[in-house]
Amino acid sequence: MRPLPGLTGSPLDRADRLRADADALANALGDWRARLLRLDGLDPVIGADGRLAWGSLAEAPEDATLLLLGLIDGRPHFVALDLRIPPNAARSRAVFRALDLLPREEAATYAAARSLIDWHLRHLFCARCGSGDSVIARAGWGRRCSACGAEHFPRVDPVVIMLAEHDGRVLLGRQPQFPPGRYSALAGFVEPGESVEEAVARELWEEAGLRVRDVRYVTSQPWPFPSSLMMACIAVADDPALTLDTTEIEDAFWIDRAGVAAAFAGAADRAFTPPPPFAIAHTLLRWWLETPA
Amino acid sequence: MRPLPGLTGSPLDRADRLRADADALANALGDWRARLLRLDGLDPVIGADGRLAWGSLAEAPEDATLLLLGLIDGRPHFVALDLRIPPNAARSRAVFRALDLLPREEAATYAAARSLIDWHLRHLFCARCGSGDSVIARAGWGRRCSACGAEHFPRVDPVVIMLAEHDGRVLLGRQPQFPPGRYSALAGFVEPGESVEEAVARELWEEAGLRVRDVRYVTSQPWPFPSSLMMACIAVADDPALTLDTTEIEDAFWIDRAGVAAAFAGAADRAFTPPPPFAIAHTLLRWWLETPA
Repeated sequence: MRPLPGLTGSPLDRADRLRADADALANALGDWRARLLRLDGLDPVIGADGRLAWGSLAEAPEDATLLLLGLIDGRPHFVALDLRIPPNAARSRAVFRALDLLPREEAATYAAARSLIDWHLRHLFCARCGSGDSVIARAGWGRRCSACGAEHFPRVDPVVIMLAEHDGRVLLGRQPQFPPGRYSALAGFVEPGESVEEAVARELWEEAGLRVRDVRYVTSQPWPFPSSLMMACIAVADDPALTLDTTEIEDAFWIDRAGVAAAFAGAADRAFTPPPPFAIAHTLLRWWLETPA
Repeated sequence: MRPLPGLTGSPLDRADRLRADADALANALGDWRARLLRLDGLDPVIGADGRLAWGSLAEAPEDATLLLLGLIDGRPHFVALDLRIPPNAARSRAVFRALDLLPREEAATYAAARSLIDWHLRHLFCARCGSGDSVIARAGWGRRCSACGAEHFPRVDPVVIMLAEHDGRVLLGRQPQFPPGRYSALAGFVEPGESVEEAVARELWEEAGLRVRDVRYVTSQPWPFPSSLMMACIAVADDPALTLDTTEIEDAFWIDRAGVAAAFAGAADRAFTPPPPFAIAHTLLRWWLETPA
């Protein structure tokens, strides 16, 4: 089975060739068919058809810069960088409701737009020289410092999210800020100088005191809070004894396939509430359920 | 076969628990057994034993900040952040010679240290507010802006590097700046809002005009120029016709297993010079050679 993660499958052609071509970009901006993503702050606006709402470029605030998301069916699609949106805007309840409602491919397009504008909002100054004279480059997919010449590109933060497996059971844990009953796969950022596989082993050691072997990659998806790349993995633990880092994980337990299946089925006596379908932990758990032991 | 990529296997215990514990960090800095990585600018210094050279903490420049790499056999290991090193220091020939010489595990420790100090050198200012009053946090694994409070963490840039496969042959290409004769797997940065698998498909389309399906992840390694996470993949192309983006790729060809084997064997009539063992393209090609069709 090939799992199909959430927040993937956007129909956008990112059209990299247009980004460095000033004439082509000007043409796209002048194209009457061009569309602008409607946003409410950083949150999506959903139309009556249950899909992302788009308007014409005329809807953009006068002082906003238009960033080229790409082409859909040959039509240019933009998002406006509105500097009045506060950086590090909190994840709202509205955005999670929207991700629940939107078709997967629409959520993917939104995720790309959100990560891109959120990156600009948090990187208006040059990290190398401190200048505020940093300008948007590559149709929105970079910044260039006019003072020192440094180029900056949108950040993508790789994250490992993983199941440790022992004797037909996998490890689930919960962070203090999770909704009541929610348990999920453990996760953490990949650090400079380590591989995906090493990050999986390190995080399970740090957070749960588990030593693992045979780390296997399963699948990946973007996560736009603010710009993670989630890589779902599974690894084998020979010793299931746990030592939790309670600053990260307030509780954790091992659960078998029947327990995970009951949780997905919404059984009254379920051991936990599973993560939502747009989260890769959901995909990872469903993949594990359907993968023979 | 499980491939063993270069620049992995460092014996460092990153000791995350020490990073947020001021007393533990002070103890590590006062530990007479603590060691300091010797560097020449950003390049490694190799001892007579062919391994990384380490000194005592007393060797650090007086005004340098010591960053905690982690523990090896319980001993704290540091690297000095010397602000006299120019940011964006060019990759020297010396560093590639060193990566050729160093045992894989030693190269991995160096890669972590290099990426970390190179990140600080390029991020002395707060990208959110422009302040130069940004201070080192978490024993070196972050910065905090004293002016606006923003936290910044070392950047890791996910990169996909991939073989397209068609009818028992894989696609190799060369960038203009490669050494003479060198060909390698195509590669590119993962962008915000896409998965690993989507990035593989997009890059092969942009650089070679190939449509691919069934993207599979093989393995990963860090690459400290300046801080990439290389994820090696393979994908199936049904149509082998190429349209090269010659700004990225000056030449490309399909080659079968016999051709790749001849290149690794250094045959006089080899079609290309393969990438060095510390590059993941080397690991990926060897994995493909040894994986049944």
